[in-house]
Amino acid sequence: MKAVVLEQKGKITVRDIALDGALGPEDVRIKPHAVGICGSDVHYYREGRIGNFVVNSPMVLGHEASGIIIETGSKVRGLAVGDRVCMEPGIPDYRSIETLQGMYNLDPAVRFWATPPIHGCLCESVIHPANLTFKLPDNVSFHEGALAEPIAIGVYSAKKAAIRPGDTALVFGAGTIGIVSALAAASAGCSTVYVADVKKPKLDFINKHYADKLTVIDLTKTDPLSVLTDAGLRGVDIVFEASGAAKVYEKICDYLVPGGRMVLIGMPSAPVPFDVVAMQAKELSIETIFRYVNVFPRVINMIASGKLNVKPLITKEYTFNDAVAAFEYAATLPESDVKIMINCP
Amino acid sequence: MKAVVLEQKGKITVRDIALDGALGPEDVRIKPHAVGICGSDVHYYREGRIGNFVVNSPMVLGHEASGIIIETGSKVRGLAVGDRVCMEPGIPDYRSIETLQGMYNLDPAVRFWATPPIHGCLCESVIHPANLTFKLPDNVSFHEGALAEPIAIGVYSAKKAAIRPGDTALVFGAGTIGIVSALAAASAGCSTVYVADVKKPKLDFINKHYADKLTVIDLTKTDPLSVLTDAGLRGVDIVFEASGAAKVYEKICDYLVPGGRMVLIGMPSAPVPFDVVAMQAKELSIETIFRYVNVFPRVINMIASGKLNVKPLITKEYTFNDAVAAFEYAATLPESDVKIMINCP
Amino acid sequence: MKAVVLEQKGKITVRDIALDGALGPEDVRIKPHAVGICGSDVHYYREGRIGNFVVNSPMVLGHEASGIIIETGSKVRGLAVGDRVCMEPGIPDYRSIETLQGMYNLDPAVRFWATPPIHGCLCESVIHPANLTFKLPDNVSFHEGALAEPIAIGVYSAKKAAIRPGDTALVFGAGTIGIVSALAAASAGCSTVYVADVKKPKLDFINKHYADKLTVIDLTKTDPLSVLTDAGLRGVDIVFEASGAAKVYEKICDYLVPGGRMVLIGMPSAPVPFDVVAMQAKELSIETIFRYVNVFPRVINMIASGKLNVKPLITKEYTFNDAVAAFEYAATLPESDVKIMINCP
Amino acid sequence: MKAVVLEQKGKITVRDIALDGALGPEDVRIKPHAVGICGSDVHYYREGRIGNFVVNSPMVLGHEASGIIIETGSKVRGLAVGDRVCMEPGIPDYRSIETLQGMYNLDPAVRFWATPPIHGCLCESVIHPANLTFKLPDNVSFHEGALAEPIAIGVYSAKKAAIRPGDTALVFGAGTIGIVSALAAASAGCSTVYVADVKKPKLDFINKHYADKLTVIDLTKTDPLSVLTDAGLRGVDIVFEASGAAKVYEKICDYLVPGGRMVLIGMPSAPVPFDVVAMQAKELSIETIFRYVNVFPRVINMIASGKLNVKPLITKEYTFNDAVAAFEYAATLPESDVKIMINCP
Repeated sequence: MKAVVLEQKGKITVRDIALDGALGPEDVRIKPHAVGICGSDVHYYREGRIGNFVVNSPMVLGHEASGIIIETGSKVRGLAVGDRVCMEPGIPDYRSIETLQGMYNLDPAVRFWATPPIHGCLCESVIHPANLTFKLPDNVSFHEGALAEPIAIGVYSAKKAAIRPGDTALVFGAGTIGIVSALAAASAGCSTVYVADVKKPKLDFINKHYADKLTVIDLTKTDPLSVLTDAGLRGVDIVFEASGAAKVYEKICDYLVPGGRMVLIGMPSAPVPFDVVAMQAKELSIETIFRYVNVFPRVINMIASGKLNVKPLITKEYTFNDAVAAFEYAATLPESDVKIMINCP
Repeated sequence: MKAVVLEQKGKITVRDIALDGALGPEDVRIKPHAVGICGSDVHYYREGRIGNFVVNSPMVLGHEASGIIIETGSKVRGLAVGDRVCMEPGIPDYRSIETLQGMYNLDPAVRFWATPPIHGCLCESVIHPANLTFKLPDNVSFHEGALAEPIAIGVYSAKKAAIRPGDTALVFGAGTIGIVSALAAASAGCSTVYVADVKKPKLDFINKHYADKLTVIDLTKTDPLSVLTDAGLRGVDIVFEASGAAKVYEKICDYLVPGGRMVLIGMPSAPVPFDVVAMQAKELSIETIFRYVNVFPRVINMIASGKLNVKPLITKEYTFNDAVAAFEYAATLPESDVKIMINCP
Repeated sequence: MKAVVLEQKGKITVRDIALDGALGPEDVRIKPHAVGICGSDVHYYREGRIGNFVVNSPMVLGHEASGIIIETGSKVRGLAVGDRVCMEPGIPDYRSIETLQGMYNLDPAVRFWATPPIHGCLCESVIHPANLTFKLPDNVSFHEGALAEPIAIGVYSAKKAAIRPGDTALVFGAGTIGIVSALAAASAGCSTVYVADVKKPKLDFINKHYADKLTVIDLTKTDPLSVLTDAGLRGVDIVFEASGAAKVYEKICDYLVPGGRMVLIGMPSAPVPFDVVAMQAKELSIETIFRYVNVFPRVINMIASGKLNVKPLITKEYTFNDAVAAFEYAATLPESDVKIMINCP
Repeated sequence: MKAVVLEQKGKITVRDIALDGALGPEDVRIKPHAVGICGSDVHYYREGRIGNFVVNSPMVLGHEASGIIIETGSKVRGLAVGDRVCMEPGIPDYRSIETLQGMYNLDPAVRFWATPPIHGCLCESVIHPANLTFKLPDNVSFHEGALAEPIAIGVYSAKKAAIRPGDTALVFGAGTIGIVSALAAASAGCSTVYVADVKKPKLDFINKHYADKLTVIDLTKTDPLSVLTDAGLRGVDIVFEASGAAKVYEKICDYLVPGGRMVLIGMPSAPVPFDVVAMQAKELSIETIFRYVNVFPRVINMIASGKLNVKPLITKEYTFNDAVAAFEYAATLPESDVKIMINCP
């Protein structure tokens, strides 16, 4: 079948590829309809690797996807051919310790779409477990369905933050993950959510589409501490670190109230210096996240109910046949874009 | 000074009364501006008692209040004469075990406005601890400030529910407390919130003002289980019981998903039958609340940020001098009203 | 193979039976070595049913078991032929929502040994998933291994109680489950654990073997409240209800401190009256348990490390061939026994 | 009155000093009986400061104390002259936000004994709030009572760790705080507790007195990872960092299971490098502590019930008149000692 294949670092083609796999009794076969481009896709394209995950052989890209079910396994219940769905892209070993403990995302054996050597879903059809395939309500579009994956990270970070109604939050990083974390925090009960970054186009995007929910801080001009002081706050209840910038960690404890907590989402390229004594003086706590677990139904509910308005996040679209151009453009890391979507035939 | 005094069961007068009290160094003196009528005020008026709290001598009514600071104690910081404020009406023993443990609402020594023999605040001025007096932002009106007290119960119930983003909730009882609990749950991350009651005027009120956030269930016509089934839900994540009706408890476990939880807000007049085995089969958990603790600033933030639109809740207003009429009307328990507000001179 | 078969209500035989089942790649085959008799086994024997679970056809009994691995599936890692093991008897659907959420015990599709129509393990060999089969350390005997199952309920109740170091606890019910819950609570950090019951032989057993950890209260003579008062306690932090007696619920809130919690383990035969207002006045919370989840390794660690001394719990032993006599004796509900163990050939 | 006075950096005298203070209605006056020497006392003696706390004028030392009540304020209930007690040494502003939220230890206004400019309790009598003064049961000695303060740190770290029964733990640092944290973890439900350090005398002390509860790891010879592997563990559930050594942080994530957590107790002298990505890969979480809050009654219960055997911790004793010699000896940081106790006249 036809697929968008990362042949090797720096080279993508749209071509025929033979993909293995028989439909198991608890699987469904899905025709992808919309697939978002993720930063990790671009990273593999530009660098050929992320940490220990190395592109050693051609790999189909794509893991943020929605589509239509075209076949169901013999034991599948609750899903039918023709259903509009989105897919959670990581398949754990269902019998692992981590799965039994409710954290299947941490199972070392997880097979995750478009993470070498596992193929992604930018192709004509994919086989997927029914229990990781979620029906889209009528009022959720394919585009919104494909956005469920990146939004899941934001919603999961909000879940991990254990937000209490009326909490205040400060998000560092206004990239896609920072934005979805900020939106999720606002929808999950935070009364005030600041988003801080140095990139003006990102902040402009937020101001244009989400000024009613998020307040931007331009780090090139403004110290977040002065913003908090001006707002009469001793600090925020929660910091979401979604920038991965080591510099943020220098003063991160200063932004928080006593008893505050941090959720670390951004992935710094090297260890960062933590001021343990500053943390202790306020008894701050830290949560970290690795992808997400058990949140796709929540994400879909939040989109369907209008709590999360995600449509503005798609800032550019390409056709499947133009996928190479899409990735070439994405690889320029355009600051004025949030999510680039590929529409399948 | 002039005050609205419950002389005895069934008799309220607006008259002069001598109130003790010197302004302490950490107190402020406040001129009340708006005071809501609470169900407990009405109960004392109609019945002369609530449980062990008996009206044995004349008592000033009122505990849902906003006002203006007219004097500050010598050690007060952060508040000044002229500040618009609302007040948390229960004053604990600050050195009690419960206070040190962060649950000062459970301190048996709490002195709570308009709970015999403690006078309330429907009078010309009240002395109150500065740390239980909260400044209102410019965009929060006196009326909204006076609503902070009943809303605090809703926000506290949402806090106790430990809502995760995208949770679903079912609220039993569409009285004032049911409505504010439902609104708080929606603002605190629930994607779907059902409110069930038998009183049509209450449901109509919700439909008129909050149809975008809350979905009503008319218990005279519809079984909540069928509503959930139709919505494709196995159950809700959280039940807020705000009716106090014993009948609700009969099937309360049926409405919840495995691992679900209940927050019990309504106060049944007698013990209710609990199906322990049904709870165990789903490992349900129960939280209860007693008034609220540490939530006033959260409530004000949520009103100020627009997360909670509480203005529609005030359905009738009276002047201070017409307070007797206000209570007489309230004592008819009019189903078409939510909150009756008394405007002070 | 030979098995202990509950033919129908009131009739057990030891006879040959043909049992289905092929060893899957992730299964092990185990020769049972010691099997405890559970109250549920006895209940099926005496009554022929528990709730909706009805003995309609012959069923092998037994689910509290240890044994030796005699065969391993092709994909099994970490377990080998000859390993001494104990087994967690409930097998969930590994792909269910409940399993993914870390509460596989609540999966409605769980197949649990000796729960109709699923056969138990009082037979010559059983096939079981490797991930629910746990190796016993050298210093844990087969008898202790077979006790892991009932102890798991106690340890799970202690886990659900979220015990903080130095908490005080009061356990109602001195049956097997009450005792293991009390022992688990003491090992999990409670500084004082009371066990209350009306049955003197049970209290005598505790006094004889566990007086250093548990303090008994004879409910026929003493009111727990007076015991707490004499000990200078306002109440206990946690009540474990393991009696199932409706009478206990009448005053259950009185025994707890503000902010206290209950763990409901006992299964009352009908709904019990709960005083919701009394719960609210102290903001009490309730947790319930259904069997256990993710605790077998914890139980084994606690036995191996000496934190739990469980050997005294076995008060009587029978051989496999005398199993009928064992069940006949158990069916008399002897108050002086705790756990009756069947030793397999 | 006579007191042990730190005159300035490097100079301690036992001399008469005039101490202010009138007994308030909610205070008690206590004659100290035993006072332990804390590392902070020694630090002020050797360095004249800890961070921003600088010894600018003579200061009475000592904050780990037990004693006898010699006078009670007019409103004091539950304590009487002659009562044997121990004292929690930090007095918060009872009306602060932090106190109301149950974290009075984080109130910036806390006045803590022997923290400049607040005098400590190595003197003839001290005035203290009754609600921070705790009666010792008959079976708890004055020495054990004086140990309650350092043990409180260990018990609080165990409380913050949210230990589940059967958890495994690894404590870095075998100083006094490391030891009490390890003992508290074992008493709070951990089935296995490792203590790792480079100082042989500390490990020898543990082996001599606590080999039944704690397992030492000599970091000069053994990698903790190999110990865990040999024990068949993928990692421990909890790491308690009580060394303050930056080097520990390099591999701290490696020692933990997925979903594990760290409690940071040790205070590194500078920011330490944290591997955020390693934390995320296992979704590790971090808790920090600042002294303790609401744990003194727990500590006393645990000592009284025998759960914590703390007597061996006192390795040397001095009389009040020999206090200078005691501090001189303590200032040599003797590795073979744990706690040095001063007996008051």
